Amino acid sequence: MADRTPREQASPSVQERVQDSFDRQGLMATLGARLAHIGPGRVHIVLPARPEVSQQHGYVHVGATSAIADSAGGYAALTVFPEDADVLTVEYKINLLAPAAGDHLEAIGTVLKSGRTLTVCQLEVYGVGADGARTLVANGQQTLIRINRPTD
Amino acid sequence: MADRTPREQASPSVQERVQDSFDRQGLMATLGARLAHIGPGRVHIVLPARPEVSQQHGYVHVGATSAIADSAGGYAALTVFPEDADVLTVEYKINLLAPAAGDHLEAIGTVLKSGRTLTVCQLEVYGVGADGARTLVANGQQTLIRINRPTD
Amino acid sequence: MADRTPREQASPSVQERVQDSFDRQGLMATLGARLAHIGPGRVHIVLPARPEVSQQHGYVHVGATSAIADSAGGYAALTVFPEDADVLTVEYKINLLAPAAGDHLEAIGTVLKSGRTLTVCQLEVYGVGADGARTLVANGQQTLIRINRPTD
Amino acid sequence: MADRTPREQASPSVQERVQDSFDRQGLMATLGARLAHIGPGRVHIVLPARPEVSQQHGYVHVGATSAIADSAGGYAALTVFPEDADVLTVEYKINLLAPAAGDHLEAIGTVLKSGRTLTVCQLEVYGVGADGARTLVANGQQTLIRINRPTD
Repeated sequence: MADRTPREQASPSVQERVQDSFDRQGLMATLGARLAHIGPGRVHIVLPARPEVSQQHGYVHVGATSAIADSAGGYAALTVFPEDADVLTVEYKINLLAPAAGDHLEAIGTVLKSGRTLTVCQLEVYGVGADGARTLVANGQQTLIRINRPTD
Repeated sequence: MADRTPREQASPSVQERVQDSFDRQGLMATLGARLAHIGPGRVHIVLPARPEVSQQHGYVHVGATSAIADSAGGYAALTVFPEDADVLTVEYKINLLAPAAGDHLEAIGTVLKSGRTLTVCQLEVYGVGADGARTLVANGQQTLIRINRPTD
Repeated sequence: MADRTPREQASPSVQERVQDSFDRQGLMATLGARLAHIGPGRVHIVLPARPEVSQQHGYVHVGATSAIADSAGGYAALTVFPEDADVLTVEYKINLLAPAAGDHLEAIGTVLKSGRTLTVCQLEVYGVGADGARTLVANGQQTLIRINRPTD
Repeated sequence: MADRTPREQASPSVQERVQDSFDRQGLMATLGARLAHIGPGRVHIVLPARPEVSQQHGYVHVGATSAIADSAGGYAALTVFPEDADVLTVEYKINLLAPAAGDHLEAIGTVLKSGRTLTVCQLEVYGVGADGARTLVANGQQTLIRINRPTD
């Protein structure tokens, strides 16, 4: 089934902050990933399935699946932080539930609990077919830490 | 300090099997990673730190760090499997302990316990400076499942 | 808010199988835990908050919180298995989100994906006040393996 | 083989601080666990295998195994903290590698990396036979947060 969840948008300034940071992640460009949705406490990242991100059987590599999941969770956290804060991943755990196949993957990071220091996100990655059919290919949980934004 | 652990080599046929599979992982080529050691139950993968694999502050992205850690663990498992078996990642958990900086990263996957169906690996990733100084930047634990090799 | 989710019951034979196994877990009796709901792919376990299960500040110990979460996930998996199968925990990861306080804890294990060999469950633990107020105190993810039931 | 690792002791004041906190954990007394070693950055906890801590097949329950692993890691962290600090578990992940059998279990928590806010520990649990034979039954990784000691 297609994803028909209504999608609330984050404020324009939050969207800009997330997009700016994403654009400075060299890995996202290298993988061919793009931000697909920036909501309050929820970010979607899309990754086209290409040979350049594959493992040995042609599916998307666990590392690429994890990379977009990690970034989706990190940016979901960033949307709920004050403007001068930045985020680092403390740790995450991810289960691979099905071969990461399809036209593209869609990673969804959702804030589960956000505290003054630590934030916990749920990570989901769907394989999306050319017909829009969605399969949950990975599910994870991530801990992030809020830091003062470095002046770079 | 430099890594001076003596390194036992896997048999030539195991080394060839691992190298062949690695060469079919499009993501490893895209990231610029290479196999640095194939021992029995222990595989090292090296990733040069480049802007193409960076996060927003210029360090290596958690996703790239995880990708080589996951592959190192998977291939460590493969070295102890029978010739006709293949491996899939069931899940892993990784802690990021320090900024992934340096000249390159070195991921080490080590088999902790290998059973008939499941194998558990320890994952370590070091940041290695131009002077050879090593810092543990990530530490993880991975569960893998043995499968019959697809005839591809 | 109170938990008003409609609760579908598992078949009587599945409920009996789960209850029988639970009753053989010495630890559940020692902790004072009881099965509160057995649905298809979903099991609830309740643990009264008592000094006997506390950590050093009087909250419920992470180990007790984890124990009921692990059992809830394991029995959720068992409800979807064939009659002659049993279940073992391969691994789990749990985040502690808030002090485990209240009148009692309620752990909920839910099957996320069930395969021929492996099953993945989501684990949630709520602290429930005397007034029924619920706080998510822990959230986790668990991998289980299906085994042939030993003839014990 | 027997564990013959030389064991450095923590200072008497650190040992007293850890023992005092342990003695206030109602769960440890309920399970029958005791502190077996308090070293700098390393704590051992022993749990006799009894029906009161069992799962459905008579082995030690994953929850009891996890409880002593979690406490061992938490107290290992406490040994490297300043005197006025306390510790809370943020999250942990544990793999169950073998049935938790034997005369008793021994959990070992070891500090892997300790920062100003977060500390990461390795968790190991051995099943120890009446003859002293040791089997690694669980292996995990834990994240802890340092907090100001509550005035209780």
